[in-house]
Amino acid sequence: MHGIFLTRQEKISKQLQSGGISAAVIRDFEGSRNSSVRYLTGHPQDALLFIFPEAGTILVPWDINLAGEYANCKRIIPYTDFNRSFVLAVSSITSEYLKPSSFPAREAECGGSQGKTVPKTKKPKIEFSSSFPWLEMESLKKSLPYAEIICRENGIDSILSSLRMIKDEEEFAIFREAAGITDRVINSIELCLRENLVTGKVPVTETDIALLIEKLARENRAEGTGFETLAASQKRSWAIHPYPSFSSAMITGEGLTIIDFGIKYQGYTTDVTVTIAGKRLSEKQEEMISLVRQAAEEAEKAIRPGIPSSEPARIVNSLFSAHGYTMPHSLGHGIGLDVHEEPLLKANQANPVTLKKGMIIAVEPGLYDPAWGGVRLENDFIITDTGCEKITSSRIISLDCPEDRHASRKHR
Amino acid sequence: MHGIFLTRQEKISKQLQSGGISAAVIRDFEGSRNSSVRYLTGHPQDALLFIFPEAGTILVPWDINLAGEYANCKRIIPYTDFNRSFVLAVSSITSEYLKPSSFPAREAECGGSQGKTVPKTKKPKIEFSSSFPWLEMESLKKSLPYAEIICRENGIDSILSSLRMIKDEEEFAIFREAAGITDRVINSIELCLRENLVTGKVPVTETDIALLIEKLARENRAEGTGFETLAASQKRSWAIHPYPSFSSAMITGEGLTIIDFGIKYQGYTTDVTVTIAGKRLSEKQEEMISLVRQAAEEAEKAIRPGIPSSEPARIVNSLFSAHGYTMPHSLGHGIGLDVHEEPLLKANQANPVTLKKGMIIAVEPGLYDPAWGGVRLENDFIITDTGCEKITSSRIISLDCPEDRHASRKHR
Repeated sequence: MHGIFLTRQEKISKQLQSGGISAAVIRDFEGSRNSSVRYLTGHPQDALLFIFPEAGTILVPWDINLAGEYANCKRIIPYTDFNRSFVLAVSSITSEYLKPSSFPAREAECGGSQGKTVPKTKKPKIEFSSSFPWLEMESLKKSLPYAEIICRENGIDSILSSLRMIKDEEEFAIFREAAGITDRVINSIELCLRENLVTGKVPVTETDIALLIEKLARENRAEGTGFETLAASQKRSWAIHPYPSFSSAMITGEGLTIIDFGIKYQGYTTDVTVTIAGKRLSEKQEEMISLVRQAAEEAEKAIRPGIPSSEPARIVNSLFSAHGYTMPHSLGHGIGLDVHEEPLLKANQANPVTLKKGMIIAVEPGLYDPAWGGVRLENDFIITDTGCEKITSSRIISLDCPEDRHASRKHR
Repeated sequence: MHGIFLTRQEKISKQLQSGGISAAVIRDFEGSRNSSVRYLTGHPQDALLFIFPEAGTILVPWDINLAGEYANCKRIIPYTDFNRSFVLAVSSITSEYLKPSSFPAREAECGGSQGKTVPKTKKPKIEFSSSFPWLEMESLKKSLPYAEIICRENGIDSILSSLRMIKDEEEFAIFREAAGITDRVINSIELCLRENLVTGKVPVTETDIALLIEKLARENRAEGTGFETLAASQKRSWAIHPYPSFSSAMITGEGLTIIDFGIKYQGYTTDVTVTIAGKRLSEKQEEMISLVRQAAEEAEKAIRPGIPSSEPARIVNSLFSAHGYTMPHSLGHGIGLDVHEEPLLKANQANPVTLKKGMIIAVEPGLYDPAWGGVRLENDFIITDTGCEKITSSRIISLDCPEDRHASRKHR
């Protein structure tokens, strides 16, 4: 087994054990993704994972061939063995692993006849991920009478989220690679747009840019993009999440265009946003650009270990509101196997986490106006001992003054 | 309001009312998609939907500008009004709409002082979609003491699933358009591969084909692809869901290549699979192809209203097992706003539904072998009065004998 996965499995097992949990179940399937299956085993998708703190991990994959290639765990059982029934898989596997030692009846068989009173053994606790639907949990309780079915507020998901929030050396290396690919893609986007928009020779659509990103990602050994690329040309950039995420709309050399994408490398995704500032912008547009740039700088200065995750967002929100603007989304979020992970960088939150060394976050100040379009500048940061390190080089690309191009490159 | 959405909202309201439900809540957000929000209102993504059978629908969108453009409902309230807190949105809205008429205290204010005894009113029932997590439901119960929080096995999801299973005229029109675009894309794929693979002049990668599909989709006024295209060249086609879904691997003129994609048009997605059969195949590969073709024909013959949804799958499974093969997935599934909807065409299911006129389904017999690769042939069908109508023209494209090309075109 690949060492990193064993280490992660041991960590989670230890914490489950200290919580008195005999087994935990997480599930990654269409409609209910849970990338912790990949975090713990390397298996990329479509599987159940059983964690028995005392006996190891069991993966139940939909595609057994895929598991043979990727999965790191003690045992693999095809989902088809259970007729692809979740309840059947859970009841078969947990009864095999948990019943013998925990059932009073079995204990009686082994030694109960010696005249001693067999103590009534407590039911083993099986924990399910907190994302399991209410109805399903209720029906599981009926199907597994020999166990106590639980779902804890600060249970397995919260433990996994805490583990995943602080990246390990393996993950830093992956992210540095992913950030490098991301930067090459940003440079290619800039090149493509400068060449075509400034001369106006070849029309460029949102789809052209989105497919360019996808193509470059795969050519650079990435698995693809980490989420559906958002390419919103000047007429649609007012939307936080334009729909559809990219269309055949033309990107012209005017107005504000937003391109938001992530490069997925070995499962991990970056998350950056480039804004293309066209020629002859209005004063309002210039102001929005200037404020977003300033917000990005102030956030970068503020981010350091030891502060609450809400603080950088509060600083940015104050800046914006001082100028009469409101940002309609959070300032940022952790990135990892998911594009949105802990910590959340949101001003108004009841229980902000404390920023810590080893977190990797995306910071994305943005302003939007239905009439003038949107501006967003998003980069990724590793939180260091004393502050943060920007690992991507996204920027607001101005088509008006080519100097900007060099200015932004200085940072790299 | 666009008539079709009003009709759908009235249908669901009527059924909720007859179940004694005062309000129902469904949610479509990242990590927990529910396309019934779009089905009922036209709003494409990221929103809560409250259905009050007596007072109409309220949408709480993340992006208020997007809702202004797409949403058909009685009232729209921005999610930011509730600090993007789900519990706050639910408690504010349901208390506004349900408390006055159902709270004994309020009734007392209005008329209880006239000396009559105010009857103890029953708590209003608020139903939540069955996909809501167990933990969240338990915490909602605490936050909404004035209501009975319920989640029913045959509740709102099941009602919506039944409604959505039978397509209306609007949906048929959309699907015929989507199928037309799908067929043009299939023809372009065939053309691209015949030109490049047979001559061997220009190398073609999985990514090239996936991006060709994406580009053609958007050029043809589709919203994009309905799910991540699977392009598995000869070395990877043994996987049901190859990972990553497409890579920079080369598609050659040999072996078996699978291309599985859907065209998303006005929210609805087709789902088809083309297999490219290369030159100089082994006997085993030829047998797999022949069996999958036969399975597709037998399934098409079997599908008609009135039979259980398991029957076509049983017929196909028998054919395969008679030749020593097993299909590791279901035969097919409904398609609509989601790529996988009811009915499920699976041999072994406890409660198969009865096929009905107006259902639209994808049928996808397939066989896979770790050594020889995979073959899958998938097309989409509308169930008619007496049988079914194939609306897409996917096929197994043989690079060996060009005659096949004409043979397969005859069906169109």
